[in-house]
Amino acid sequence: MTAVYADPIAFRQACRNQQWTEQTSQIAPGYVQANLVIVPKAYAYDFLVYCQRNPKPCPVLEVLDVGNPISQYLAKGADIRTDLPQYCIYEKGQLVAEPYDLLGDWRDDFVSFLIGCSFSFENALTKVGINLPHLTHNTHPAVYQSLWKTTPAGPFYGPMAVSMRPIYQEQVKQAIAITARYYRNHGAPIHIGHAAEIIKDISQPEYGGYYQIQPGQVPVFWACGVTPQLAALQAKLPLMITHKVARMFVSDWQDKDFLDIN
Amino acid sequence: MTAVYADPIAFRQACRNQQWTEQTSQIAPGYVQANLVIVPKAYAYDFLVYCQRNPKPCPVLEVLDVGNPISQYLAKGADIRTDLPQYCIYEKGQLVAEPYDLLGDWRDDFVSFLIGCSFSFENALTKVGINLPHLTHNTHPAVYQSLWKTTPAGPFYGPMAVSMRPIYQEQVKQAIAITARYYRNHGAPIHIGHAAEIIKDISQPEYGGYYQIQPGQVPVFWACGVTPQLAALQAKLPLMITHKVARMFVSDWQDKDFLDIN
Repeated sequence: MTAVYADPIAFRQACRNQQWTEQTSQIAPGYVQANLVIVPKAYAYDFLVYCQRNPKPCPVLEVLDVGNPISQYLAKGADIRTDLPQYCIYEKGQLVAEPYDLLGDWRDDFVSFLIGCSFSFENALTKVGINLPHLTHNTHPAVYQSLWKTTPAGPFYGPMAVSMRPIYQEQVKQAIAITARYYRNHGAPIHIGHAAEIIKDISQPEYGGYYQIQPGQVPVFWACGVTPQLAALQAKLPLMITHKVARMFVSDWQDKDFLDIN
Repeated sequence: MTAVYADPIAFRQACRNQQWTEQTSQIAPGYVQANLVIVPKAYAYDFLVYCQRNPKPCPVLEVLDVGNPISQYLAKGADIRTDLPQYCIYEKGQLVAEPYDLLGDWRDDFVSFLIGCSFSFENALTKVGINLPHLTHNTHPAVYQSLWKTTPAGPFYGPMAVSMRPIYQEQVKQAIAITARYYRNHGAPIHIGHAAEIIKDISQPEYGGYYQIQPGQVPVFWACGVTPQLAALQAKLPLMITHKVARMFVSDWQDKDFLDIN
């Protein structure tokens, strides 16, 4: 990693100042990160039901009040419009802009959803010695549109997105046991080993870099918070805003606060 | 127990025929049970956000489509209007009827929410030898309105409801470890030992019987799915329907299907 922030407040300040506009895997180790989806209120109910019906890829951590861009729960006082590295604005499912803040785009009918992210458990994995290849390449895990379908709700439907991490065979059990406890950040893997059963081509991730599976490693797949973006894109909403992929919202909560035991 | 159904389908049939109208703790051991809340569509978004903001007491397991009384997920084909033992109808927060079915009361704008229930992990506790006093008295655990407040959403607010089970000191760790894994059915306890910190009077539960804490036992409190009922009552909705307390929806899913590892 080229940069690490010990403090999520300092990290969000760097975003606000546009000093950090890159991806956030292990940017503030041990802090819970979240995906952002913003939709007009007219679509918020169906979107929330979609998330409820697909809890593995879409664990909702916070729903902000209609029109309010300020987080109350994940990071009290953080401004959704400025405190992420970069955003994507979509109109009818087409990318129209990738701004560094949303100050000029905000509307009173916007509802913001913060959704769990597997970056949140990466520190727990590395702490027990599970090496994650993307970290040594200063990027984020490979993310694929899987062959698996989600359960629709209203206009929302589409494939489940998955993140993949190559794990050494003898560490797979440990990776499962650890991540299972982070159920609000996708929890246990949804598939282990046979890539062809869940994705089309392991060498062609939709996002992130692919690192060759090494001898002794197996590909391990987790449900991914890009899923609700895919669904909202397929629904071709008149307007929808998300974080730019892998450029997450970094919360004030630590991973230990989100264990199953809490 | 006076009656046990090995099969949830047979149990729901008994409800439909009004052959079973009583409480359901351990009625179909090992099957996941759920609380029912029905509200008009106009209140469904705020109610779902309320549940999202209070995931310990209000883990939503299924949201039925607007106007549709048939479950798709927890028990495919089950009819919400007939397949529970008994219901409560509230107008502006006042109980107006306790019917055995909802066939005459159904409306096209009704949205049904099925919410996790701690009865779902009772079989896992008894299987390791943790004795639950209410079972030997053929009733359900004591349920209290706690002193703790929930996080509001729209018109919904109020105290958290809790269920209490007296557990022998040497079994408390095991009870915590087991229930933590059922995070979609309230998960780990929210309080152990000092009743006065969480409820007013341990001898006066709002629902269910109180069984004297025996020497060597401590009271253990779990978040309870009566919470959203309390919130909806405080909101004084024009109309709201729930199951009658402790008379739950029994699903086709087994407790093992709802573990954190899934």
